[in-house]
Amino acid sequence: MYFVTDVALAVRFFLQLAVILLVCRAVGWVGRKYLGQTQVVMEMIAGVMLGPSLFGLLMPEAQTWLFPQTIQVNGTEVKHPSMSILYVASQLGLVLYMFLVGLEFDVSLLKEKARGAVAVSLSGILLPFTLGVLLSLLMHQDGTYFAPEVSLWEGAVFLGAAMCITAFPMLARIISERGLAGTTMGTLALAAGATDDAMAWAMLAVVLASFRNEAVIAVWAIGGGLAFALLMATIGKRIFVRLEQWTQREGDVTQTIAITTFAIISLAAWFTDAIGIYAVFGAFVTGACMPRGKFSERMRYRTEFATSTLLLPLFFTYSGLNTRIQLIGTGEVLLMMGLVIAVAVIGKWVGCMLAARVSGETWHDANRIGVLMNARGLMELIILNIGLQFGVITPTLYTVMVMMAIVTTVMASPLFAWFSRDRSAVPA
Amino acid sequence: MYFVTDVALAVRFFLQLAVILLVCRAVGWVGRKYLGQTQVVMEMIAGVMLGPSLFGLLMPEAQTWLFPQTIQVNGTEVKHPSMSILYVASQLGLVLYMFLVGLEFDVSLLKEKARGAVAVSLSGILLPFTLGVLLSLLMHQDGTYFAPEVSLWEGAVFLGAAMCITAFPMLARIISERGLAGTTMGTLALAAGATDDAMAWAMLAVVLASFRNEAVIAVWAIGGGLAFALLMATIGKRIFVRLEQWTQREGDVTQTIAITTFAIISLAAWFTDAIGIYAVFGAFVTGACMPRGKFSERMRYRTEFATSTLLLPLFFTYSGLNTRIQLIGTGEVLLMMGLVIAVAVIGKWVGCMLAARVSGETWHDANRIGVLMNARGLMELIILNIGLQFGVITPTLYTVMVMMAIVTTVMASPLFAWFSRDRSAVPA
Repeated sequence: MYFVTDVALAVRFFLQLAVILLVCRAVGWVGRKYLGQTQVVMEMIAGVMLGPSLFGLLMPEAQTWLFPQTIQVNGTEVKHPSMSILYVASQLGLVLYMFLVGLEFDVSLLKEKARGAVAVSLSGILLPFTLGVLLSLLMHQDGTYFAPEVSLWEGAVFLGAAMCITAFPMLARIISERGLAGTTMGTLALAAGATDDAMAWAMLAVVLASFRNEAVIAVWAIGGGLAFALLMATIGKRIFVRLEQWTQREGDVTQTIAITTFAIISLAAWFTDAIGIYAVFGAFVTGACMPRGKFSERMRYRTEFATSTLLLPLFFTYSGLNTRIQLIGTGEVLLMMGLVIAVAVIGKWVGCMLAARVSGETWHDANRIGVLMNARGLMELIILNIGLQFGVITPTLYTVMVMMAIVTTVMASPLFAWFSRDRSAVPA
Repeated sequence: MYFVTDVALAVRFFLQLAVILLVCRAVGWVGRKYLGQTQVVMEMIAGVMLGPSLFGLLMPEAQTWLFPQTIQVNGTEVKHPSMSILYVASQLGLVLYMFLVGLEFDVSLLKEKARGAVAVSLSGILLPFTLGVLLSLLMHQDGTYFAPEVSLWEGAVFLGAAMCITAFPMLARIISERGLAGTTMGTLALAAGATDDAMAWAMLAVVLASFRNEAVIAVWAIGGGLAFALLMATIGKRIFVRLEQWTQREGDVTQTIAITTFAIISLAAWFTDAIGIYAVFGAFVTGACMPRGKFSERMRYRTEFATSTLLLPLFFTYSGLNTRIQLIGTGEVLLMMGLVIAVAVIGKWVGCMLAARVSGETWHDANRIGVLMNARGLMELIILNIGLQFGVITPTLYTVMVMMAIVTTVMASPLFAWFSRDRSAVPA
């Protein structure tokens, strides 16, 4: 019955983990020291390097041995369980990471800035979505970018949604690294980013519903997602307050408190995954509805390493394994990649900047919000992986979009630093 | 090419995780409150309850839906990837947990007690091994307990080795819970337990080598294991000291220090897994060779929850899924289970007690060492899972041995408390 024993899978997993951690550490060190990049960005690049684009190009046999994609079972080629293990472990890391991001998210500041957040997030969607739709018309001619069975409007909505994504966790990290976590600008950008991503997930659900011919998918995703967020923010929040009281009574987050919290996160991740808006959203909302204080502070301190440091890099590698830079070999695809990047940058940066300015931010802050919102990072990889898994996009479009995600993400940190420095150099 | 999408596997994984955590928490609460048991013991029982023995008996369809064992691919039944994911995630938890156990292991005290540790561990092996071998002669008659292709001596060595196992992580937890971590008795028991387990792994490697007709397996396991431990204790230890200096310089375990440590653990886990003495041993040795101080204290504090609380319960569930109490249905098997438990308890408890007494411990401490060494716990489950995966033992013997592991483990904590209480009641 076995085709790969679990023991053999575990052996390979530990070797994969060691290689991924060492490469991420080395690439991250170079990025921080010489390129002014954050660890996340460099981990995205490390992931692509471990895939067929570099490691697989230099040592194809070693690469497919370490990261086997397929296996023969009775003459049929099936996906190797090793890939599924990498994916699920990375999802666990992603969920815990998004929970921690939610824990840092200041809901009260959001209320004050609600009008601005809505404006920024709406135009952070409208402009890139429209441009994405226009671009998809160019792409839909042959089967290079979309699977042949994908209709014109399905491709349009998918590409539009993919353009709207914001690197929400990265946004959170840059904002916290720069000490902007409590400021109105930081909160505005975070709120708009979260809203944009939620809307993009909803659009993705519509595409998948249509593509798989099950309208109920979209209803579940949008209705269920709203109901979930609403329930968590009302009843959930009132129950979760006890976690803080409990922590204060015990003096620290105990094992029992941790188990309870992990169980809540897993349930939320399962529910949002099952209705099709994906676990990252559920985990973030759960974190945002948890009480602040000793509980949140200790919980973060006691879990962030094992999750974001140990498991999260697996996600970048999983995505990198599906990226094949070789596919951008032809002039036409290269041109398309340039177009995609230009459209992505203009749509998101300019769209968000204008909206923030109209909402009352200064040009300076509006510009910086645009720069931050433009980064696609991790979240783009999530939506692309889903598109690829369900056969909506081809490996070529996947690779083009991953490149766009990397370029927009690499831009964000240095540009933000540059625009921030510029202002402080001016005498007050 | 796909037979289960990664997204579908992730959805199921989060539901499994939620159910496992909630059940472990509920069962653990009952055990602590009413039965005087530790959380580990109750998690073993919770694992069996989630398998075919209870959940599967009451709701067979729900059980196989939540924990699918097999799946059809082109008319062939293959192992469901969901099981492999559970296994690898649980191994990751196990490895990190054993690393933390190693971090607490006091090597210096061991040196003072070397003679005693050798005596206790040797007779902690000799008596149970001999009794196990005798018992295997009874079992080898028909195909109920061993696969037909298992030779008489292979079955004997496997059962002998399985009898020698000590619940090393549980031993460590009981010793630390009772505040005996720095005492000579605690250290003696820990050292003897570690040695016994290492020897049992070596014997298991010999069985597998013979069973698969590859002598090189045994050479790698025993030679490689010794070389690994020696290298780690000399060169490794000298290099790892820098982790403590690094932590002191930074003031805390930083992300980079954590990544480095995780990479070392993964490499050690991979190496020991690959040579066949299994990742738990490599992780423990790595932990034992790491520097003590701020590094070990912070590392433990910052990782123990996500590992032992979140991932470790998966291992108990994985083992429980392979346990079918129904298989002990016949009178003959029931009788054999009684014999196995009697042999296990007499061999380990009495053997270790006598040796400890001869090494100079008081009868009182010698008895308590015997009680602790008798618990099989987690480690027994590991060796049994390997035996089952490689087809050495049948599901029936697996179930009999799991019951033995549970009974000896359930005994340990209350008996130890009872014998300890007894002494303290006597006026000094």
